[in-house]
Amino acid sequence: MSEGIKDKVAIIGMGCTKFGERWDKSEEDLIIEAYSEALDDAGIEPKDIDAAWFGSCFDEINVGKSSLPLATTLKLGFKPVTRVENFCATGTEAFRGACYAVASGACDIAIAVGAEKLKDTGFGGLPEFSSVLGTKNRFIFPNITAPGAFAMLATAYFEKYGLSYEEGKRILARISVKSHKNGLLNEKAHLRKEITIDDVLKAPIIASPLGLFDCSGVSDGAAVAIITRAERAKEYTKNPIFVKALQISVSDGREYMYNEWDGTTIPTTVNAARRAYAEAGIKNPRSEIGLMELHDCFSITELVTYEDLGMSERGRAGEDVESGFFDLDGKIPSQTDGGLKCFGHPIAASGLRMIYEVYKQLQGKAGKRQVKNSHIGLTHNIGGFPAMSITSVAIFGND
Amino acid sequence: MSEGIKDKVAIIGMGCTKFGERWDKSEEDLIIEAYSEALDDAGIEPKDIDAAWFGSCFDEINVGKSSLPLATTLKLGFKPVTRVENFCATGTEAFRGACYAVASGACDIAIAVGAEKLKDTGFGGLPEFSSVLGTKNRFIFPNITAPGAFAMLATAYFEKYGLSYEEGKRILARISVKSHKNGLLNEKAHLRKEITIDDVLKAPIIASPLGLFDCSGVSDGAAVAIITRAERAKEYTKNPIFVKALQISVSDGREYMYNEWDGTTIPTTVNAARRAYAEAGIKNPRSEIGLMELHDCFSITELVTYEDLGMSERGRAGEDVESGFFDLDGKIPSQTDGGLKCFGHPIAASGLRMIYEVYKQLQGKAGKRQVKNSHIGLTHNIGGFPAMSITSVAIFGND
Repeated sequence: MSEGIKDKVAIIGMGCTKFGERWDKSEEDLIIEAYSEALDDAGIEPKDIDAAWFGSCFDEINVGKSSLPLATTLKLGFKPVTRVENFCATGTEAFRGACYAVASGACDIAIAVGAEKLKDTGFGGLPEFSSVLGTKNRFIFPNITAPGAFAMLATAYFEKYGLSYEEGKRILARISVKSHKNGLLNEKAHLRKEITIDDVLKAPIIASPLGLFDCSGVSDGAAVAIITRAERAKEYTKNPIFVKALQISVSDGREYMYNEWDGTTIPTTVNAARRAYAEAGIKNPRSEIGLMELHDCFSITELVTYEDLGMSERGRAGEDVESGFFDLDGKIPSQTDGGLKCFGHPIAASGLRMIYEVYKQLQGKAGKRQVKNSHIGLTHNIGGFPAMSITSVAIFGND
Repeated sequence: MSEGIKDKVAIIGMGCTKFGERWDKSEEDLIIEAYSEALDDAGIEPKDIDAAWFGSCFDEINVGKSSLPLATTLKLGFKPVTRVENFCATGTEAFRGACYAVASGACDIAIAVGAEKLKDTGFGGLPEFSSVLGTKNRFIFPNITAPGAFAMLATAYFEKYGLSYEEGKRILARISVKSHKNGLLNEKAHLRKEITIDDVLKAPIIASPLGLFDCSGVSDGAAVAIITRAERAKEYTKNPIFVKALQISVSDGREYMYNEWDGTTIPTTVNAARRAYAEAGIKNPRSEIGLMELHDCFSITELVTYEDLGMSERGRAGEDVESGFFDLDGKIPSQTDGGLKCFGHPIAASGLRMIYEVYKQLQGKAGKRQVKNSHIGLTHNIGGFPAMSITSVAIFGND
């Protein structure tokens, strides 16, 4: 059994752009904006960086299939730059590459960069997704649209736990209302308006039972993390944030192929969480985790994830949602920055955007959104579809 | 300054398919073939593997942009799988990811997989390459075909060192003759026939001065490496091969943009080699390196690389080539397996195929191709074009 990387590395600086319809900026511009903020935050210069990991899923920047777009954008001068891709978990993969390199001793300071100009792709549904999957691919994804795939989680969940359509919709609505309330406090969020339960219930249906406000949006953005060895972190900052666990779990398709899956969970989340808790030494996540940034691509994803992470008992996440357990002033504030719901989901940027929020919260620098007495935060980043997914669970601490 | 990963990790098993026009196999089949050989070689079972790194540049297998193709092909059961891409250096990037993960303590046993069904892409020149670069990309590569880009190295080299067209062509021909002689001894090579200097000189021109036999071919293949911590390697095998250095250098475009480059070198090779020698503690590569597998996508690339690696003095690699210095029975045998020249270049597989040959040679298991008294081997894997490239230089040792 491996020892893991607990307490071997720390984040000493981060940057994140405003997410949204960034017609004013190229992807290069967004990367430079987030990079500049991260350098200032860490108090280092470009020359101090030893290596970089780059995530960008759509080839909208420069030339795909390589790390050259990042090397040329940041003028990294022959330094090692690696490109990683793992669908919507790409941002966390970039972070993971940088953490392993530092923990291995291969370099002292590494950066992880995630960026996407999703608006430029025209991304929005089936035709574009088909072109991503490619006409030549022999593998057909189950339930080809993202809303369609995740809506089936809701249908199965409602059925299994005896919720009527109206009861289920109301729980999901409460999740989105909470996130919009948080996003309103965040200048970097894309969608900044308070919404009501009624707004959600009356919105057009995208894929039943999910309506417009159950879905995250399409936006542009970039985020950057600077990582160094834990024992050197205080040379750079008074507030390093330490990596306590970093796990990723990838489906091999058997849930889908052999029907071992009842459709109300995301199996890779369960697996990644179990390993992350073991690595961090967390016995009771519901009492030990202080805040969370989850991959709320849809409201139902967030609901199911509360259970998959062991924060709520099976079938009872709805009660926790309605009691305010995950609100900004609740026991485990979740989506404190507004989540994918308010930021949208520029694929490779999202994983690092989540880490940015947990980093700021654990440093006590989250401004109007600051949660109290939180020392341990969790991020959860999914790629793929419920039945065929990549999930990363990371745990961070401020001491 | 970081300590690097010298002697922290070792290869305990490898597998490599026969390369060629593998119409008989899917990419999944090729991966499984190489994986099975690697498992048998290491004497381990699938359950012993903790994590995987996957390289495949063309999305011919399953769904691109993620690690799902490998997870589903090998049925990896929720284990971490990461996809990396760095053009033609992708295979070495997969290896690097696995090495860093093991060296960091994140896992005990990791695999690196590189595979490509290049024949299925119809890859062969400008139209396909343009479709890879994508119509939406804003960046135009210098000299868009690979033969065209590398041919310019030859033109500049001949000019700088006062070689006539005939003199230059003859040196390049000698390089290909040597590789074909080696490839003839290798059952896994694609092209297995001896050629003469005359054959090369009389072959059709592809991009002057490069002719047909100056170019590597298009083929299918897969290779797999199994990596564990150096101190545990002997639990699995009597012949572990240790990683002495693993460096990668990425161009940031300044050579191309600011004309600081005379066109007779590949700057990232010079940079990666300098760092690799420092990491491995090699002072005089010409006397310390025992054998090499270079990225001979074209004969001129191999010539220039001899100089970029410091094996030959500037302008004098041709003399070394003609004296037999790099032949199988020479001082530093190079392309002992036949190189890209005889294997073809299935993008993500090539880097791991090179490591396979050095691994077998250093174990003394290279059969008819076995070189004598070699304890240190080097692999060199380039992605991109001479002016905008990614180069990895790795050094391996058998004690």
